[in-house]
Amino acid sequence: MNEVLKQPRKVYVTRTVEFNAAHRLYNPDLSKDDNREIYGKCSNANGHGHNYELEITVSGTVDRTTGFLLDMKELKEVLEKEIIDRFDHKHLNLDVEELRNTVPSTEVLAITIWDILTVALQRYTNNGITLHEVTIHETRKNSVRYLGE
Amino acid sequence: MNEVLKQPRKVYVTRTVEFNAAHRLYNPDLSKDDNREIYGKCSNANGHGHNYELEITVSGTVDRTTGFLLDMKELKEVLEKEIIDRFDHKHLNLDVEELRNTVPSTEVLAITIWDILTVALQRYTNNGITLHEVTIHETRKNSVRYLGE
Amino acid sequence: MNEVLKQPRKVYVTRTVEFNAAHRLYNPDLSKDDNREIYGKCSNANGHGHNYELEITVSGTVDRTTGFLLDMKELKEVLEKEIIDRFDHKHLNLDVEELRNTVPSTEVLAITIWDILTVALQRYTNNGITLHEVTIHETRKNSVRYLGE
Amino acid sequence: MNEVLKQPRKVYVTRTVEFNAAHRLYNPDLSKDDNREIYGKCSNANGHGHNYELEITVSGTVDRTTGFLLDMKELKEVLEKEIIDRFDHKHLNLDVEELRNTVPSTEVLAITIWDILTVALQRYTNNGITLHEVTIHETRKNSVRYLGE
Amino acid sequence: MNEVLKQPRKVYVTRTVEFNAAHRLYNPDLSKDDNREIYGKCSNANGHGHNYELEITVSGTVDRTTGFLLDMKELKEVLEKEIIDRFDHKHLNLDVEELRNTVPSTEVLAITIWDILTVALQRYTNNGITLHEVTIHETRKNSVRYLGE
Amino acid sequence: MNEVLKQPRKVYVTRTVEFNAAHRLYNPDLSKDDNREIYGKCSNANGHGHNYELEITVSGTVDRTTGFLLDMKELKEVLEKEIIDRFDHKHLNLDVEELRNTVPSTEVLAITIWDILTVALQRYTNNGITLHEVTIHETRKNSVRYLGE
Repeated sequence: MNEVLKQPRKVYVTRTVEFNAAHRLYNPDLSKDDNREIYGKCSNANGHGHNYELEITVSGTVDRTTGFLLDMKELKEVLEKEIIDRFDHKHLNLDVEELRNTVPSTEVLAITIWDILTVALQRYTNNGITLHEVTIHETRKNSVRYLGE
Repeated sequence: MNEVLKQPRKVYVTRTVEFNAAHRLYNPDLSKDDNREIYGKCSNANGHGHNYELEITVSGTVDRTTGFLLDMKELKEVLEKEIIDRFDHKHLNLDVEELRNTVPSTEVLAITIWDILTVALQRYTNNGITLHEVTIHETRKNSVRYLGE
Repeated sequence: MNEVLKQPRKVYVTRTVEFNAAHRLYNPDLSKDDNREIYGKCSNANGHGHNYELEITVSGTVDRTTGFLLDMKELKEVLEKEIIDRFDHKHLNLDVEELRNTVPSTEVLAITIWDILTVALQRYTNNGITLHEVTIHETRKNSVRYLGE
Repeated sequence: MNEVLKQPRKVYVTRTVEFNAAHRLYNPDLSKDDNREIYGKCSNANGHGHNYELEITVSGTVDRTTGFLLDMKELKEVLEKEIIDRFDHKHLNLDVEELRNTVPSTEVLAITIWDILTVALQRYTNNGITLHEVTIHETRKNSVRYLGE
Repeated sequence: MNEVLKQPRKVYVTRTVEFNAAHRLYNPDLSKDDNREIYGKCSNANGHGHNYELEITVSGTVDRTTGFLLDMKELKEVLEKEIIDRFDHKHLNLDVEELRNTVPSTEVLAITIWDILTVALQRYTNNGITLHEVTIHETRKNSVRYLGE
Repeated sequence: MNEVLKQPRKVYVTRTVEFNAAHRLYNPDLSKDDNREIYGKCSNANGHGHNYELEITVSGTVDRTTGFLLDMKELKEVLEKEIIDRFDHKHLNLDVEELRNTVPSTEVLAITIWDILTVALQRYTNNGITLHEVTIHETRKNSVRYLGE
């Protein structure tokens, strides 16, 4: 089976999940005026929200027996536990431990998710599979990619 | 010009706008348990949020001179003032006068927007043009339509 | 709460689900040539498949206490049991009892799903809520709507 | 076969096609100022363009033998000949006979396509199948529906 | 003409095609239990199916005379012959020579398409143009990229 | 605030804008026959048009105080001035200075936009932020990426 995999083949597998969350962009270290200047209507005191679309890409060599890079059921469980349970239907500033003391911009969110998944995937996935990219689409017009650089 | 419009032609014109807002589904008239039972994680105390995609459909007879149902610039201004300014980057429960004392479900939101636009379009648009439909997509999976029934 | 609902308001709520299935368009009552003529490459003996995107629309009066037309958790359970369990990752011709002795075209599939849900929603949903529309997108280019007519 | 079709079932089948065209909104019966006022940057002398996404919906009773409303290959041929050949990679004002002496707004385009297809489908399709709806998406934000009213 | 191309410019051109196919994930070298464990409902004996969306990216220096990287008509013909004719409306396990003796996972499919196109594009395209990336979206949530590594 | 940014983090921020333009693919240095051969119906004398979807990606280190790579309001202003004002509702061959004497293919357009933005972003953005990628989707099927190589 899977002759095509006799030589090692490196693939990039992307799983997309969505979570719906509120957030507020506001830095208490700055003046009210600076906050309004920098964050505009994103600094609205009661917050606003988004349907965040998150693309997680892992890479590595395809397993010759299964034809898979990794067990997608396991990856789904990791994302359910680490991403959905933590961020979905939450207020990012108030309900998420890892975002305390941050301005939860899309940039900060992408990096935080990278840091969380780097640890989580270490425990769950086999050797050779690494987190390659975290991309978040905040709206259809704005997105941020982080590659661990 | 526009021979095709010699006979009256009724069209439906749809304009799509997006706004990003936080909300919380919680009815203070009900017990905590009932709220948790009915609204589940949507009742999270600090709220969550969405990219709401709103489709506004107006209908009427095409103008023979312009080839338009209505002046789209005017409709855009109405939607900017009545929808974007009111709902975008807001917390629906706390920042929107018209949603005070409601559970801002997608259903209630669609009906409220219908009521607002029925008044607003009365002032702006010419005779014969009526609001036909308000559709809100809360996520890619859930949407609500209201037709004034 | 929910003053806006003091008068009855009829809304249409749409839930979208996806299932991935194989099928073959072939009518054993017809000759091989007729099958090839009518169904073309859709009659391929070993079948082909689709990501079916299904939109289920129910309509009725919004509940004044909850602000919902219906309990979406319940609707999701019905769709999970009646649609996903029955059609997802199946061969429509071979694995689905309700499609035995049919040509599982998108038209037949939409009607069959209507018939299934009419019964299923009778058991689950409260009075006044009716199935309004079943729409299936077979590809980005082809879709079929059935309204029970 | 197709027991489910023993009773007549009315369905709506939608086919989506895309064409890429240039156009200019300008009414020579009006003054330059009026044109600028009404059409804004859409009146740019050299024109601009769009990827028009066109949804054609036909309705009727499903055929009991084939399980189809109509032969999709035939509908595709009609749309290829009547829509793609006529509008794709054309300048709507200058290259399309049927749009001479019109302001090719999305409204006028939808109505013109309805008129063309009403004739074309009369010749090609069997009795009982009627054109139900023509919808054009000019951009992701603007669309027009015409139902022959 | 095309002063901007006086210096060599390397671009990446992506063409997207779709094919609809059935498949089954099952490895006969493994036990029934292992298959059920690894492939879950994807191992359903009669198969299931997908609308596969395939993005082919080629890269190279833009031709100074034409302004094109390559003749898109030619690329379309290659993809028609090598991809559509081979995979569309087929059962991947049973109808496709190149996938015999494989588990046709998205990973294996992406690699197989890369191998096919590497040969096919060698014959058709001019020097300097290379296959850069093959991406397959199996569903809206899962995709695999292969870059020849 | 923003402990996560204590170490420098490089992100890629993408902003998507759309413009609607007409164009014609025709090289006056070539014969009529060569033009027809190379550009097919894209060489139609009166032009055709597209909804161009443009993705601009900039990269750099996230600012520790703001949590942003850059001020999105400023980037939007640059894109409004340099892209929308220049290309939207224009005929690319006739109305755009920078495309004079070019065949405005998607390749040439992507490179031209790169050249324009490289200059424009030099003036507006802070040190360390560089233009990373320009991607244009001409249709849902064709896109071109340019990375300054």
